[in-house]
Parts: sequence; C-alpha cells; structure tokens
Amino acid sequence: MKSVFPDTVALVEVELNKLLPAAAAPPEKVHHAIRWSVFAGGKRFRPALLLATGKAFNATTETLIKTACAFEMIHTYSLIHDDLPSMDDDDLRRGRPTCHVRFGEATAILAGDALQTLAFRTVAEDENLDVNTRVALISELARAAGTPEGMVAGQALDMEAEARQVNPAELEEIHRHKTGALIVAAARSGAIIGRATEAELDAVTNYGSHLGLLFQITDDLLDVTASAEDLGKTPGKDAESRKATYPGLYGLDDSREAAAKAYRAACEALERIDRPTTVLRSIVDFILNRTG
Amino acid sequence: MKSVFPDTVALVEVELNKLLPAAAAPPEKVHHAIRWSVFAGGKRFRPALLLATGKAFNATTETLIKTACAFEMIHTYSLIHDDLPSMDDDDLRRGRPTCHVRFGEATAILAGDALQTLAFRTVAEDENLDVNTRVALISELARAAGTPEGMVAGQALDMEAEARQVNPAELEEIHRHKTGALIVAAARSGAIIGRATEAELDAVTNYGSHLGLLFQITDDLLDVTASAEDLGKTPGKDAESRKATYPGLYGLDDSREAAAKAYRAACEALERIDRPTTVLRSIVDFILNRTG
Repeated sequence: MKSVFPDTVALVEVELNKLLPAAAAPPEKVHHAIRWSVFAGGKRFRPALLLATGKAFNATTETLIKTACAFEMIHTYSLIHDDLPSMDDDDLRRGRPTCHVRFGEATAILAGDALQTLAFRTVAEDENLDVNTRVALISELARAAGTPEGMVAGQALDMEAEARQVNPAELEEIHRHKTGALIVAAARSGAIIGRATEAELDAVTNYGSHLGLLFQITDDLLDVTASAEDLGKTPGKDAESRKATYPGLYGLDDSREAAAKAYRAACEALERIDRPTTVLRSIVDFILNRTG
Repeated sequence: MKSVFPDTVALVEVELNKLLPAAAAPPEKVHHAIRWSVFAGGKRFRPALLLATGKAFNATTETLIKTACAFEMIHTYSLIHDDLPSMDDDDLRRGRPTCHVRFGEATAILAGDALQTLAFRTVAEDENLDVNTRVALISELARAAGTPEGMVAGQALDMEAEARQVNPAELEEIHRHKTGALIVAAARSGAIIGRATEAELDAVTNYGSHLGLLFQITDDLLDVTASAEDLGKTPGKDAESRKATYPGLYGLDDSREAAAKAYRAACEALERIDRPTTVLRSIVDFILNRTG
C-alpha cells in the first residue's frame, strides 16, 4: 500500500539512514542485508502513528523521530525473521526477494538480531529525551515486541494455529499479540513522549488497539482481494499456508463488517481525547480504505 | 567446564527463574525452549564477572543481579541462534540437544528473539537502579551485543572467515567482537553500577579485554585437547568446520604462550585498580586453568 503520509516516509528514512550502520562498515554483508530490508519501500505505518500521536500531545518531531525509527527497526527485524524458511517461508516481500533469499539464511538471522539490538540502543542513547522517558519507552517497546505479551508471542501462536481451525477468540488473541501490541505501543509511545496523563494514555491505548485490529482485518482482506502488483507479495498466501485469518474464519462480508466496527470504535476512542486528533482520525480512514 | 563460583550460579539461576516467563504461560513452546537453553548447566561466566567487578566497587548484589541476568540472556540467545543449521549447525550443547534439535528451528529463532528482548526489558525495569544507570547499561549491553562493535558482528566475521585462512589480526578482530565485547561489557557494567570513575572504567576495560582474549584462547585449546565429556559438546568441531582458531593458526604451543601472555596482561590491568581485586584475580586464574 501507499504510505499514510508521504512526508513522514521521507523524514523517517532520512533518520533511519543516519541511525543504521553504513553498508560499507564491516560486517558488510549484514549491514547490506539490514539496509536491503529497512529500505524496501515500507509504509512506515508505526513511525507515522507514533509521530501523529506525539504531535497531538504537542511533542516535537525532534523528540519523537528516533523512537519512531526504533519501532520501524523492531518491525523490520520481525519481517526478516518471519520470512525465514522455517517460519513463514516467504520469498517475496514488497515486490523484492526477501532478506534470506537475497543474502542467505545466516545473514538474515544476524541482520534481524542486530536490528533488534539497535532499536533499544537508539532509544537508550536519544539525547533529546530525558532518561525517565527513555526507560519508559524501552519498557514499552520490549513488552510489545517480546513474550508473553507481544509480537514474538503472536508469531508463535500464529504458527501453532497453522493447519488447524481457530475460534474467534484465538484469532483475536493471535492478532492482538502479533500486530496489535506494536501498533498500540507506537501510539502510546508518542503520547508518553508528549507527557500524556494516565487517562489520556488509556484513551490512546483504546484507539491503538482498535486501529491495530482494523489494520489486521484489512491486511487479511487484501490478501484475498488485492492483486500481486498492489500488494508487492504473492496474494492468497495466507489461505495456501492455512494461516488463521478473518476472511478464512468469517468470510468476506462479515470480515468487512468487523473492519467497519473496528473503524467506528477507533473513531469513538479519539472522541475521548481532548486534543487535536484530525491526523489520528485520517490514519483510521486511510487504513479502512487502503488498497495495498 | 565447572563454574567460576558455584554460589554465583545458584544466585543467578534463582533470579533468572523469576525473570523468565513461566513455561506454562502461552506461548508454552517458546517459553519451554527459553528455559531449556537458559537452564542447560551454563557456567554463568558473564554474570559472575559482572557481580565480582561490581562488588570490587562496593555495589550490592541487589543492584547487580538483574543486569547480570540480562547478560546471561543475551549470551544464551546468541548460543541458540549460533547453533542453528544455517549458522554453526550444532546438535549438541552442554551435553544436551540444542534448542532447534529439541524444539524445531522456528521455535529456536523465536526463543532467541524473545530472550534478547527480555534482556533489555530487565534492565529498563530494574527498580534497584536509578534511571541514568539503567540507560547507561542498556547502551553498554546493546553496543556489546550488536553491530558494528559487538557480538553479532563477530559471528558474521567468523562465518565469513570459514574455509579460508585468516591472519592473526583478523583472528583477533573476530574474537574481540564475538566473545570479547560482551565479556568486557559485563565487567564494565559491574563497575558502572559501582560508580567507578572514568580512569577506573578504563582499567576495567583493559582487564576485561585481556580476560576475554584468555577465555577465547583457552576455549579454542579445549576444543582440541578436551574430551567430549568435559566439554559437553563434540570436540574437534572447530577444525572440522574450518573455524578460525588460535591452535589452527598458531599451533598448540604458541597458543598456550598467547594464553599465558593474556593472563599476565589481565593481572597487570588489575594492579592499576585500587580496589579489592582478589576475586577478579581468581577469575583470571580459573579461566587459565579450566579443563572444560
């Protein structure tokens, strides 16, 4: 899909370019692999969400941008590892060979490992943030990325669920961990940098969790309905690998209804935030209507 | 090998048991895999070194123990990933099947990923440390674990060097990254928690880097000379896979001389630290004389 905001993409990519090790620095192959996957035309959805939420709470770009990049590093590391032959075994990502196809499995594993490390280092060393905030953000990011609450737990649950029929509660549990946790944490991290109150953070959490669900349902729908060109990867892959998906469990019509419901809930959550939320609202619109 | 200090092992394992997700918590398989590898009879060398260095600088066990466990988590994650078929392809570790042999490749990758995440979360959430110290430790740990300066860089350089003759400078470069960086950082982190001065930190860095070199040379020597029983893994594996090693490059006698030289340099570095360093000295003695 196209990005939520093209100007965010440029901003994030300039900063990522500064934060990542140079491709010419040894070990060159690992650094090439990192840059191959990070600069593969990603949507930068999590950084855009973090920046938009932070700005709703009056935080400056300067205080938000490095943490936004740290979220993109964690997201990219997870894509590299999830694509590996022993995991989802994907050869194509965003229209290009996946990291292990291009650089070999060992280098892909190391590139993912190094990207995860760099995400935490980036936040720990961000001198635009006071140390209390850095520590809070590292905890937030780690909980969303790891187990038992986060992304790695979701990937493990997703793989366990392959080749068996999951029930609605299990499907939600998989997605809440696998994609939801990091999306919620991106929104919350923007709000944390903007010094949101506890009540505001609760509302942001609510917004993020409905937005995350919407993101996943539309992702599942696109896997069924979009063309390979729009998607940048092979459509129909979920059904083929018997992944747990919304269309697989509910059918297309009910999945679209579930998306509409998540959309409304995300918008309602925004109404409880007494801040300028136009941009956060436009993100929900964008995700509902995305075509790739 | 036996541990440097048996009482440290018990202390570290009690704390690791508290910090790691319960095996019964979902995703169970990943949590079982994490515990399988973490509680596999490791020597706890890095935690022991961190605790000993911290105590030389008057830090309490309470302020040191969680960071010590974080180092063991990073070390264990690296063993799990290094043992994978596409990396060093090891079936046996400490006398037991490696993580991917026991739980499958996908679970081993996820277990390593989650352990790395938990290491950073553990330090970020350690309420026995002020936030300035936590941030400094996370930066220290991340630099030692990642690229271009740390462990992942070392593993990449090591794999690049397989099946070709390396020169002495390249061999040192590999080991300085692959094992040295984390050992140096463990010693430094103890000193940081103990509020060492910059001059003291420099001396600790010096001590750690000679100790790290000694550790690697004796490790290489044991791969040639020790029995499988003492080693808990298949000896001769390095030569078979054409890994870059000290005995491979220098022969046994010159490697033993290099070990003696590293031993003396580590002891000399300790003489420049005006603190009670008896325990730090006994670690150097132990590593020189280890038999497994």
